[in-house]
Amino acid sequence: MSTQKIENTITHFHKIYKGQLNKFLELLKVPSISTSENNKDDVLKAADFLVEELEKLTFKNVKAYPTQCHPIIYGEHMGSPDKPTLLIYGHYDVQPPDPLAQWHSQPFEPQIRDEYLYARGSSDMKGQIWAVLTALRAIFESGELPINIKVLFEGEEEIGSPSLDEFLETHKSMLKCDLILNPDAGMLAPNKPTVTYALRGMAYFELQISGPKADLHSGLFGGTIGNPANILCELISKMHDDQGKITLSGFYDDVRCISDQEKIDLAKLGVDKQFYMKTTGVPELAGEAGFSPVERVYTRPTLDVNGLYAGYIQEGAKTIIPAYAMAKISCRLVPDQDPEKIHQSLKSFLEDTVPEAVKWELKYLSGAPAYLSEPKGTWFEAYLKALEETWGVTPIKKRDGGSIPVATSMKQILGVDSILTGFGLPDDQIHSPNERLHLPTHKKGIEALIRFFLSI
Amino acid sequence: MSTQKIENTITHFHKIYKGQLNKFLELLKVPSISTSENNKDDVLKAADFLVEELEKLTFKNVKAYPTQCHPIIYGEHMGSPDKPTLLIYGHYDVQPPDPLAQWHSQPFEPQIRDEYLYARGSSDMKGQIWAVLTALRAIFESGELPINIKVLFEGEEEIGSPSLDEFLETHKSMLKCDLILNPDAGMLAPNKPTVTYALRGMAYFELQISGPKADLHSGLFGGTIGNPANILCELISKMHDDQGKITLSGFYDDVRCISDQEKIDLAKLGVDKQFYMKTTGVPELAGEAGFSPVERVYTRPTLDVNGLYAGYIQEGAKTIIPAYAMAKISCRLVPDQDPEKIHQSLKSFLEDTVPEAVKWELKYLSGAPAYLSEPKGTWFEAYLKALEETWGVTPIKKRDGGSIPVATSMKQILGVDSILTGFGLPDDQIHSPNERLHLPTHKKGIEALIRFFLSI
Repeated sequence: MSTQKIENTITHFHKIYKGQLNKFLELLKVPSISTSENNKDDVLKAADFLVEELEKLTFKNVKAYPTQCHPIIYGEHMGSPDKPTLLIYGHYDVQPPDPLAQWHSQPFEPQIRDEYLYARGSSDMKGQIWAVLTALRAIFESGELPINIKVLFEGEEEIGSPSLDEFLETHKSMLKCDLILNPDAGMLAPNKPTVTYALRGMAYFELQISGPKADLHSGLFGGTIGNPANILCELISKMHDDQGKITLSGFYDDVRCISDQEKIDLAKLGVDKQFYMKTTGVPELAGEAGFSPVERVYTRPTLDVNGLYAGYIQEGAKTIIPAYAMAKISCRLVPDQDPEKIHQSLKSFLEDTVPEAVKWELKYLSGAPAYLSEPKGTWFEAYLKALEETWGVTPIKKRDGGSIPVATSMKQILGVDSILTGFGLPDDQIHSPNERLHLPTHKKGIEALIRFFLSI
Repeated sequence: MSTQKIENTITHFHKIYKGQLNKFLELLKVPSISTSENNKDDVLKAADFLVEELEKLTFKNVKAYPTQCHPIIYGEHMGSPDKPTLLIYGHYDVQPPDPLAQWHSQPFEPQIRDEYLYARGSSDMKGQIWAVLTALRAIFESGELPINIKVLFEGEEEIGSPSLDEFLETHKSMLKCDLILNPDAGMLAPNKPTVTYALRGMAYFELQISGPKADLHSGLFGGTIGNPANILCELISKMHDDQGKITLSGFYDDVRCISDQEKIDLAKLGVDKQFYMKTTGVPELAGEAGFSPVERVYTRPTLDVNGLYAGYIQEGAKTIIPAYAMAKISCRLVPDQDPEKIHQSLKSFLEDTVPEAVKWELKYLSGAPAYLSEPKGTWFEAYLKALEETWGVTPIKKRDGGSIPVATSMKQILGVDSILTGFGLPDDQIHSPNERLHLPTHKKGIEALIRFFLSI
């Protein structure tokens, strides 16, 4: 594709930008929270919105495939029989917006303040899907798409993609492709376009400790009843030693250590103590002894409590021994840890450690191994070039601490690598109150996608 | 007072029982939850109800004295100038009804099922106030009250009686009396009328651990950010050793040990392992090594978590590092522990133990020392006799694990001992869902009060 053609397309994109942004706000208004039963219809509504948009973009065989929870959307644009096929992945479901009180504007009433668009899903990842669709619209309205594109947008990413693997297995030939573009991985900073080549996996659990049949008066019974809340705290506390190491038996057995060269490369990224402290506002960092902050986040497994509940948590005092206590606990995993082995290890820990005074139940909510794949080949080079031409800097190739289990699934089932990228920023507050999208970065991202789609 | 006169009064009581019960249901319908700002008007409504009832009973100088939160009701019936004066204490506020989902009927829509009246406050302690008022009504309608009675009903007991001490100081002469009757202590079993001579004190805290300025994505940051939920668990875990002893420095320094004789008496009460396991439904007991279950509850201090909160606690998974974590923690105290010393000890523990990666805040919500007073003298004997004549068994004199800080305050400020008694049962589920009152026991309690009031 000629440079002139590309520049014309980008010029056209700038003309349609405002209209596309307004349409995007409509998508953000739909509270497609996949984890909540109450929002099932909203997730469907978001799916319908995308199906309609794909059809307008002249995609063929567009369909929302029903699953046990939320549909998987597929569509294809196969206008270039001799050219390679790119499968683009996205998810249109979002995280719950809690705690609501901490939002400065409503999570599903998008608001632009300064250079940011605030809304749940704006960055993770409706904004990334919209970048793809906007780039394609600019191309279709300016000329022709020189490659074949298939899209797969799921509505269950935030609940661990329970239907995806089966869908990939069942639709292998429909999904046949040469490479996958997965823009769910983000970039390091507004001036640091990024491709990610390794991600952490995940194992997510819910642990319930039950004691008395109902909340008890802490005066009439306190002293001889094992308090489920105290016991839960004790169990969680025992899951780490004083060096920040996780104590579950065999937890580190399969961890692949990184090379000295990679340690050196990681140290150069600028993702340092100052970066983490400034981004998060914590008074001091913590973590596993013997590793730098960026090594801990990109290359080491974790065990974090994501939620805790027991007893009375409203204002004031209530003097009870809670009937039960609950913790949501998740482990981020690294190559080559096996989520099921981690599950079994946690189970053994509980079998050995929970005192007789209480009962316990462990639910294994979801699990996925880590992902690792060196970026190389024509397509990778073309994508890196598109980033470089757009930003005027050498793109960064890096690991990431997050989890995109779909990349692992697609590699395992379709046998295809993913370009893990995207235009979200570390301070977009994804999964947190006041999630936002940096609009100038997002705009550059769309330009980069246009360059990439037209460059093969 | 002649036995015949007493029996006539009890016969009259049986006639008015049904009508009094119906009136009582109206009081139970008022959600006078003192801890909740939203129920401030309901607490006032319950106060008005009692003021009106006292006036109908020809009490004089009846007044709801305003306080910073909820009013204190006073009234007096001084018809026997030469006779002694009894001050009767009660509280008309109730605990919050949470968790609502576990109630089989609505907490503020009283329902009678079998021998029980189910409602929040039915046992703790609107039912006890109502027993007193019903006994007095039966007496007034049958003849004369041969003693002087003053009543003090507060609306802040469940929030630690913040206004009571000042009220007692300010109204010392108005409250002058020879003995106090406090029916907030309950009895051991339906056939075991009980007087309590020792209670535990309390120190109630709320601890908040804060880390990042907002919830963080556990993938992008997990591994190098001190997780406030994990850290809270670690702190709570460190507050006990593996023998069930509390580790706060100096915690046991002032604990008064009980005599060998009292150990023997306690062992005879029938409050044994089987009692606690059956009443609570736990699979095994727990607690401080070296003490029997009843010794732990009646004579040893505790540290219990009453509530825990952090992060995401709804259905499904949310992968965050919570911005903060909160625990409600209370210590039951025994003679001669000082709540303020316990507060300082917990503060020192946190100063020494909380890691640099988080900030902490400790709120001291309320505190009261334990109460201890041997039951003796004419009034005590008369009360024990009234119980014995009603139930036909020797009443039990015992300690209790609960806290009635007002007994300590009244002893300290008014210089008067309390008869700690009442007609609530251990399985009334006070402070828990499905609080209930055992109606046959309550009825006997009213008979015993009639005998007592008429016996001096």
